[in-house]
Amino acid sequence: MSIGTTAKVKIAIIGGGPGGYVAAIRAAQLGGDVTVIEKHKLGGTCLNVGCIPTKALLHAAELLEDASHNAAAFGLDIKVNKVDWNKVQTKKESIVNTLVSGVSGLMKMNKIKVVNAEASFINANTLLLKYLDGSVDKASFDKVIIAAGSVPSLPPIPGIENKSICIDSSAALSLSQIPSSLLIIGGGVIGIEMAGIYSTFGTKVTVVEALPNILPTMEQELVAQLHHKLAQSGVTIYTDAKVIKIESSATQAKTTISRQGKEESVITDKVLYAVGRKTDTLNLDLDKAGVNTDKGKILVNDEMQTNIAGIYAIGDCLGQVMLAHVASAQGEIAAENALGHHAKYDGKSVPSCVYTIPELAGVGLTEEACKKQNIDYVTGKFPLSANGKALIMNDGFGVVKVILDQRYKSLLGVHILGPRATDLIAEAALAIEMEATAEDLIATIHAHPTISEAIREGVLAAEGRAIHMPNKR
Amino acid sequence: MSIGTTAKVKIAIIGGGPGGYVAAIRAAQLGGDVTVIEKHKLGGTCLNVGCIPTKALLHAAELLEDASHNAAAFGLDIKVNKVDWNKVQTKKESIVNTLVSGVSGLMKMNKIKVVNAEASFINANTLLLKYLDGSVDKASFDKVIIAAGSVPSLPPIPGIENKSICIDSSAALSLSQIPSSLLIIGGGVIGIEMAGIYSTFGTKVTVVEALPNILPTMEQELVAQLHHKLAQSGVTIYTDAKVIKIESSATQAKTTISRQGKEESVITDKVLYAVGRKTDTLNLDLDKAGVNTDKGKILVNDEMQTNIAGIYAIGDCLGQVMLAHVASAQGEIAAENALGHHAKYDGKSVPSCVYTIPELAGVGLTEEACKKQNIDYVTGKFPLSANGKALIMNDGFGVVKVILDQRYKSLLGVHILGPRATDLIAEAALAIEMEATAEDLIATIHAHPTISEAIREGVLAAEGRAIHMPNKR
Repeated sequence: MSIGTTAKVKIAIIGGGPGGYVAAIRAAQLGGDVTVIEKHKLGGTCLNVGCIPTKALLHAAELLEDASHNAAAFGLDIKVNKVDWNKVQTKKESIVNTLVSGVSGLMKMNKIKVVNAEASFINANTLLLKYLDGSVDKASFDKVIIAAGSVPSLPPIPGIENKSICIDSSAALSLSQIPSSLLIIGGGVIGIEMAGIYSTFGTKVTVVEALPNILPTMEQELVAQLHHKLAQSGVTIYTDAKVIKIESSATQAKTTISRQGKEESVITDKVLYAVGRKTDTLNLDLDKAGVNTDKGKILVNDEMQTNIAGIYAIGDCLGQVMLAHVASAQGEIAAENALGHHAKYDGKSVPSCVYTIPELAGVGLTEEACKKQNIDYVTGKFPLSANGKALIMNDGFGVVKVILDQRYKSLLGVHILGPRATDLIAEAALAIEMEATAEDLIATIHAHPTISEAIREGVLAAEGRAIHMPNKR
Repeated sequence: MSIGTTAKVKIAIIGGGPGGYVAAIRAAQLGGDVTVIEKHKLGGTCLNVGCIPTKALLHAAELLEDASHNAAAFGLDIKVNKVDWNKVQTKKESIVNTLVSGVSGLMKMNKIKVVNAEASFINANTLLLKYLDGSVDKASFDKVIIAAGSVPSLPPIPGIENKSICIDSSAALSLSQIPSSLLIIGGGVIGIEMAGIYSTFGTKVTVVEALPNILPTMEQELVAQLHHKLAQSGVTIYTDAKVIKIESSATQAKTTISRQGKEESVITDKVLYAVGRKTDTLNLDLDKAGVNTDKGKILVNDEMQTNIAGIYAIGDCLGQVMLAHVASAQGEIAAENALGHHAKYDGKSVPSCVYTIPELAGVGLTEEACKKQNIDYVTGKFPLSANGKALIMNDGFGVVKVILDQRYKSLLGVHILGPRATDLIAEAALAIEMEATAEDLIATIHAHPTISEAIREGVLAAEGRAIHMPNKR
């Protein structure tokens, strides 16, 4: 799509997270007169209390893991004297601040106005702006893009209201010290990432997941391997388990869990609830604009448009796939459409990533989804123990699983557990976006020695012709 | 390509490196009666004295670099007591042995005979086999695939014959101790990788390159940044410089270098010559089979066939692109064709990788190549300082450079300097293989936060619509 010369359209964007600020930049590129209205900080959940600080802590954990465990095998005699948690936090904050001020710079550079206020609708074209000092204002716009995001869900568990003990993911990123023990309610992406990080820092972690498996949306065969690895490293994981109640003092919590027909209790310093997130749309007064919602989730078509002409919505506030890169992609689409284009959002190449050690990533369909959809598929698996680079990096722990359409040999899904998985998944996302076939992946020469070779081998395996492993006959 | 039911064709493969052993497996899959003839060790240069041991040493260097420099910023108080070089070497050997015995296992599993002998042609169908014990034998085959590989070139420099001081890359991988100083003749991939590794281990390294730039085949704009980084970390790099002579004792060498019109000398413990490799075809008696060569390089068509029907050649012994993954790809092609198929080798998606800290990788055309070929192109660059994951991993050092065809917007080249570059290049290789356009890359959702986002941003930048940086107007 080329950059048009559309007349100056006044566009308001509610929310300055990875959906909103990206939408703002794209709208400015296309000639819009753009205002971002953000009630907290530019960068939203992702930059301030989500993806970025989590990955900063994870990187510290990886450095620690390498120094304390992996370096010795490579002949390095290293002593970890201590983890200075204040410095870990300072580094995390400095990375967050660099990126947030980067976003602020991008706003200036693109001549985007930023208003620090809470927005709500007066009608479809007019917003009420409540400033932090309590003053209010009105402003009218030609188009509005709602990128209001989400907040952690508070599960209805008796005793969870003690905020000094029971924390959400935002608070878990900024603890004043490393807890000696931590119970995590929820074995989804956030819960498992936090389990991996704090466990590496020496916290005794217990994860309680109500479903039969952790990470239920990811490829379960790989999840099982990661589950085993986490358990080996000392994380206690209870699945099919429910938290009944939390009894807490000022310093500790006793959490009662029901599993296998029995109740038991776990005593920990902190309880982290990570049972999902809900849309942050309550105060938007969407009804005044006539915008249709379903249980707080804003309804849109594939052009990201709501039922009201000129009002778009993107990202977490749709209550669908709550991922920063989805919000950004939808933000670009919404901006283009607000400026007169007709771009459509297509979620088929959305990668899902879990930042553990090692990483887990997937794109396209899982095997379970193929079964449910009655798709005639074939799988290929390649263990990283047969990949030279992985053998060097992590003793070859991990696997690539490829799912092909049986008839057309097109790639339906790729799932990777191993070093660099979250970056490796990009090749698979492009393949799915371009409707690549097995032959396309096989014809692509993969550099040696890299982990990426295992993706090609996974495809070869699905075709019964892997080179570096036995093939099914 | 499906696995055929071809009648048992007797195939000899000369050389058991990444070209030969892969060709052998593919030929066995297709029903061939396969014999691999290897004069040294299965796995060839790559597994035994090339890619794999180099990357094992590099990983040790990375762990050391992280522990000594990067961990402190992330709040880890770590002391490196010492580098136990014997243990570094032991780990390296153990990785090499695992992979070599893995190849041996693959040979058995695929019912491939392995003959430990040196092969030469008696005629187009008959090979002379010289065993290590001096005995000889003859054997006839229907088809022969030559995968004879290459050996380091010895530059004609007076004094280089002192083998205890002047070493090739194989010897550099197995030094009995870390040299306190090292002069490297040649700033190509091998020379620069060795410079990075030994410099990290504390060796005072000097690189002497005859050309105006190091890594002449890689994208020069990125090479300049890597050059600067290496220099900053203490590696002395002389370009446009020639080694005149080497005067050595039993323990040291005085190397005389001519540069900027003057001669100067550098005293080091060791001198590593890494001025390229030459085909290892001298003892094959190719003339007896009538195989055409040019200065020892075997000539083939795009089906990997020589001028003699039934004789194929692949990999380093062609004297072209000497990379393990090229040899493997050509090996699969040659095996298929030896078994009656008509597969063609196409080198357009061959990635080139330099395993430094951080990594450098490229695929497709460099900007210089586009200029030379009078291609109408446009470039886009995205600095990793604006990428969240890179900021976390290495303070955002690096860049992605994308080259698009001006008219068709197809990807001509992608070049990456940064963490994980050698794995990230796989997406770009697939893109080039599939003749992807800018829109294909832009439509692909890249996971956040990953380094791979920078590839999409590089493409956006080429289109004048990058999100996280200013755009050229």
